[in-house]
Amino acid sequence: MKRSTKVAIVNLADFEELAKKRLPRALFEHAAGGAEDEITLRDNVVAFQRLQIIPRVLRDVTERKTDTTVIGHAISFPVLIAPIACLRRFHPQGELALVRAASNAGTISIISTGACYDFKEIATAARGFAWLQLYAYRDKAVTQALVQGAEAAGYKAICITVDVPVDGNRERDRRNSYYYPREMLYGNLKGLGVKGVSRRMNNAELLAFADRELRVALTWHYLEWLKTITKLPILLKGILSPQDAACAVSSGVNGIVVSNHGGRQLDGTPASIDALPEIAKAVGGQIEILLDSGVRRGTDVLRAVALGAKAVLLGRPCAWALAVDGEHGVSQALEILQKEFSTAMALAGCARVSEITADLIRLP
Amino acid sequence: MKRSTKVAIVNLADFEELAKKRLPRALFEHAAGGAEDEITLRDNVVAFQRLQIIPRVLRDVTERKTDTTVIGHAISFPVLIAPIACLRRFHPQGELALVRAASNAGTISIISTGACYDFKEIATAARGFAWLQLYAYRDKAVTQALVQGAEAAGYKAICITVDVPVDGNRERDRRNSYYYPREMLYGNLKGLGVKGVSRRMNNAELLAFADRELRVALTWHYLEWLKTITKLPILLKGILSPQDAACAVSSGVNGIVVSNHGGRQLDGTPASIDALPEIAKAVGGQIEILLDSGVRRGTDVLRAVALGAKAVLLGRPCAWALAVDGEHGVSQALEILQKEFSTAMALAGCARVSEITADLIRLP
Amino acid sequence: MKRSTKVAIVNLADFEELAKKRLPRALFEHAAGGAEDEITLRDNVVAFQRLQIIPRVLRDVTERKTDTTVIGHAISFPVLIAPIACLRRFHPQGELALVRAASNAGTISIISTGACYDFKEIATAARGFAWLQLYAYRDKAVTQALVQGAEAAGYKAICITVDVPVDGNRERDRRNSYYYPREMLYGNLKGLGVKGVSRRMNNAELLAFADRELRVALTWHYLEWLKTITKLPILLKGILSPQDAACAVSSGVNGIVVSNHGGRQLDGTPASIDALPEIAKAVGGQIEILLDSGVRRGTDVLRAVALGAKAVLLGRPCAWALAVDGEHGVSQALEILQKEFSTAMALAGCARVSEITADLIRLP
Amino acid sequence: MKRSTKVAIVNLADFEELAKKRLPRALFEHAAGGAEDEITLRDNVVAFQRLQIIPRVLRDVTERKTDTTVIGHAISFPVLIAPIACLRRFHPQGELALVRAASNAGTISIISTGACYDFKEIATAARGFAWLQLYAYRDKAVTQALVQGAEAAGYKAICITVDVPVDGNRERDRRNSYYYPREMLYGNLKGLGVKGVSRRMNNAELLAFADRELRVALTWHYLEWLKTITKLPILLKGILSPQDAACAVSSGVNGIVVSNHGGRQLDGTPASIDALPEIAKAVGGQIEILLDSGVRRGTDVLRAVALGAKAVLLGRPCAWALAVDGEHGVSQALEILQKEFSTAMALAGCARVSEITADLIRLP
Repeated sequence: MKRSTKVAIVNLADFEELAKKRLPRALFEHAAGGAEDEITLRDNVVAFQRLQIIPRVLRDVTERKTDTTVIGHAISFPVLIAPIACLRRFHPQGELALVRAASNAGTISIISTGACYDFKEIATAARGFAWLQLYAYRDKAVTQALVQGAEAAGYKAICITVDVPVDGNRERDRRNSYYYPREMLYGNLKGLGVKGVSRRMNNAELLAFADRELRVALTWHYLEWLKTITKLPILLKGILSPQDAACAVSSGVNGIVVSNHGGRQLDGTPASIDALPEIAKAVGGQIEILLDSGVRRGTDVLRAVALGAKAVLLGRPCAWALAVDGEHGVSQALEILQKEFSTAMALAGCARVSEITADLIRLP
Repeated sequence: MKRSTKVAIVNLADFEELAKKRLPRALFEHAAGGAEDEITLRDNVVAFQRLQIIPRVLRDVTERKTDTTVIGHAISFPVLIAPIACLRRFHPQGELALVRAASNAGTISIISTGACYDFKEIATAARGFAWLQLYAYRDKAVTQALVQGAEAAGYKAICITVDVPVDGNRERDRRNSYYYPREMLYGNLKGLGVKGVSRRMNNAELLAFADRELRVALTWHYLEWLKTITKLPILLKGILSPQDAACAVSSGVNGIVVSNHGGRQLDGTPASIDALPEIAKAVGGQIEILLDSGVRRGTDVLRAVALGAKAVLLGRPCAWALAVDGEHGVSQALEILQKEFSTAMALAGCARVSEITADLIRLP
Repeated sequence: MKRSTKVAIVNLADFEELAKKRLPRALFEHAAGGAEDEITLRDNVVAFQRLQIIPRVLRDVTERKTDTTVIGHAISFPVLIAPIACLRRFHPQGELALVRAASNAGTISIISTGACYDFKEIATAARGFAWLQLYAYRDKAVTQALVQGAEAAGYKAICITVDVPVDGNRERDRRNSYYYPREMLYGNLKGLGVKGVSRRMNNAELLAFADRELRVALTWHYLEWLKTITKLPILLKGILSPQDAACAVSSGVNGIVVSNHGGRQLDGTPASIDALPEIAKAVGGQIEILLDSGVRRGTDVLRAVALGAKAVLLGRPCAWALAVDGEHGVSQALEILQKEFSTAMALAGCARVSEITADLIRLP
Repeated sequence: MKRSTKVAIVNLADFEELAKKRLPRALFEHAAGGAEDEITLRDNVVAFQRLQIIPRVLRDVTERKTDTTVIGHAISFPVLIAPIACLRRFHPQGELALVRAASNAGTISIISTGACYDFKEIATAARGFAWLQLYAYRDKAVTQALVQGAEAAGYKAICITVDVPVDGNRERDRRNSYYYPREMLYGNLKGLGVKGVSRRMNNAELLAFADRELRVALTWHYLEWLKTITKLPILLKGILSPQDAACAVSSGVNGIVVSNHGGRQLDGTPASIDALPEIAKAVGGQIEILLDSGVRRGTDVLRAVALGAKAVLLGRPCAWALAVDGEHGVSQALEILQKEFSTAMALAGCARVSEITADLIRLP
């Protein structure tokens, strides 16, 4: 990328525009698109914009601190990296470039079950800032191997996806005949010593294994078992109902991610940010709440934190930044978002993240 | 149709786009259009999209059952075929192709009074999956002949249209000088042995007869009489008011269809789905509620069922599918919708249709 | 106009489109336009469309009666002709063509103070179906001459405009340097025998007189005086506030016209139809309520009547119809609207105007 | 400018269109644009349009008085000139042309800290109609010098900006590499005798000084000190929260300006006019409330006054008028707005500003 192009990047939307020009259309549409009519996809972004911020003035915000913690882990600002499968599609260094940028920025990457590298490679690059996003397998031995592999490699938490009992109906992928590139997926499955998987499998064999094994009756009982095989904190990713949030509290998990999977699963759900207030009420501060889907601005981070999220997950913009400029792109994206967030804090009258409270937001 | 075109069909909207290219413009606009400014026509679709679905997670939805019953009749998923007159306009095999596809899919077709084939031909093709949509005639003998003809042929219910005391003001038809093709209409009237109708009438004579006889004071009293001439269950199609729904319960009919006639009658009514919640409350489970107008997605079926409909009627998309690929097209359309519905159930956390309840929907 | 063009007219909007092609741009924009940003102008039409109609079914509507009365005067359907100044701008026969068409249709024309013909010419053509729209003059003798001139000629009511203390800010007219054609205005002022006005005045002199005299402190006191000089019923045109409506009841006038002057006076007022429900409540049936601004469809007439208007006034569409085809055009426009209204009644389940009640409407 | 162009100016939007053609694009976008996605910028204008005005009729409005007072200072109508830095960017005579026009129109200009001329030059031209907009400096001696310099020159009030703890994120400026022209800024800083500033400094030195000194912890304590160094009334500009408004009352300042800085600081705040009603309630008439951001019409002035503002500040339209035609342009803009306001008063039924009350407005 030429320097002149870099000058043009002033916000996260710029990365998307550049990535659109660089990536194959089918891949871009796969990552940018959502399920069916993409109503939830669009609403995720617009819903933030509907939430008005009432700033407070005449407070000393000259020295602001954007840092916070998630599940006891210190991060530099309330933004984590959302899991996206198979990041080598976007850049040759894939997850490694991403976690280097995120760790340097002082925040956590949630690494997809479908990562291109194995746990150790990623954990080394992440220097303690990695969590595992987990897709549960029908064969509990595989799930166990994944969880314990991550734990052994130094991952710090398990974020299990609960909103994919079946794949969302992503019509763009069907029109474009888009498939994940087999040779890139599941770097972490190999060599975990689970039955039916070996380092010597080629990718076609590996993928067939995974497809066959991913149809699992993932229920609250499954979570009970999951808790027995790891000491890591567990978060549930994909909660939109206050009742499910209350169940999560009862179930003893450590946190939830309010998410509609970026509009990629059930089209027609509320925007995540619109679901947050009732969920925060149901949770009542007993466990931590994260949120993803639609975050594009520092003011969005502020809105989510004000309404009860400990932090947000940033997904697509990281993929675009990775495609545009690898590790440096992701660093730049995180820097932009942190700067925007710091500015939003100042203008809203907040010097600390703990001062970002619900009374700053006027619900529509 | 070439195979390459078929590949492009991923949802019901694709059939409309293809049908638009194939059908004469006046016919397409006749079937696609609505009354006057088409406000209700458009709102029928958008209203579904406004109703947000709050999914539940961590339920076992690996084995889903989409089947249900309507008026005691088992169907494979909560979708029936709405009545459309004169289906040979869309495909040479008209109603026969349609009912074959519907019966194969395990669901019921509601056959228009203005069908191109007679009761026996259709009933044979439908193999027990046919209901009669009835327009009442001024001469009760004609009505009686229709109802008893249908009953004799094996139709299973009478669905009488109550929202056409006069024709809606469909301006597209007036601008296009569109008329029903006389040679195709009323295959079922001939040979029913009613006064003034005979098998030897040509179509012009038959149509004149029908036009003359369709202006009837259709009232609750008329329904009392209707109940005396048939043992078939009776449903009222075209209810939008909770008061009328309550009257329907009192009148002893077996069900109602919440409908604004696809936006073709009174422009300015609420979308059917917006009228449903209050009607469901008024009916209180005493009779069955169906719904049509605006269903385009599996999520729409789920919304209607959640808000109190036993099933929905699918109209225009069937005509488009018929135009695009005859029986095979309709089969494909139903398959797509059933698959979408099954996916929506899974993603909403429902393994059975009975689990689709009102708390899944956030009313605007 | 060629016959082929006439065939294309199916609704009132068609007249506007044709008139736009025929009239000088400045005149078309003068009549079609509104004040300042034209927000009220647009909302007048859209507001009707927001009001949903809940139809009732299974009522005998085979023989419908659309007739009603206004201030004791029988009319064929609840639509009067709104006053528009100087109709010869639209057609050589101006007011005469209009009142002939309206009288033939069995309804009343409200004739502008700025008509091109004198009272007797118009009254003769109107055959008892004329009311006077009155702009009050500073010199009460002029007002008195106008009122008594109308009364003597056979006009049946006085409809005094109360929403023009100053002219609205109509920017289109200023950009187009549009002025009323002097030679056409104020046919009714000449020969009334008021001080300073004579039949021998040329039009420039007459216009200067009118301009000078129209700035009057029109107050409730002025109305007290007005009541002393005529036995005709008096209506106030231009009420939008429930408080003013209550004052109107107290003042002893016979009716009010809920109106924002077609969006031509104060931009930013509510649409007339949105103001109606609260005004109807304030009036409580003590005097009659009419309404104008935004009526384009039979369903609009039904909505206004349902919410408490005895009838509506039709303005711009009459000017367009007059421009397109003179008396015949206006007849055609009224016929279209009456037919639409009759159809709307049938589809809503109303056989008589008195059955059009507020429960048919769902307020937003 | 040719006379023919002047004829085309009928409202404030016309000035913007003309200015857009004349000014360098980067300057135009700097002044017209807002922060980040410009949601607040756009909503500022639309929010006024959402507030409907319910006019009263039959009141004597033939002789209207538009005058009022702000902080005891008589003005000809409830519109002041908002502060904009460095007006020589728009016209060679900058602030001098502006204040001459404003003073001639009988209203007050609030002069930016970043004006191009010194206090005495401006005060002379303003003839008693100038207030100081104050950016607080870290070095209180500079702030003191500014305040006392203004006071000595005859400025009548201090309007301190409280919503710029940091600069808003104005992306247009970053994309356009737009900077304030150094040679024009801070005419008022020179020669005030503060430490580190002298008349002999070149502009680069002066600007570096200002940049270094503007990062100040501006708090309620700072205001306590400010009150000790001047006898002038103090207003806080940039309040959007009712709580801050209540604090302002407690703090003993003389007034507040409800403002989101024209959408240039925190994107996502409510429109100023939407924030006004709750703030007016919190203030309860104890101090005066002004408002800026989005005023474009006389009806907007009326809305703001009705909802509790003593007057509004007009910003961007003055810059455009200045760019288009210097002092004469600003005079023309003010004349247009005063005329629109007078017309709006008449049409709303108000003869005096004190008659513009909250019951005229229907809140959405």
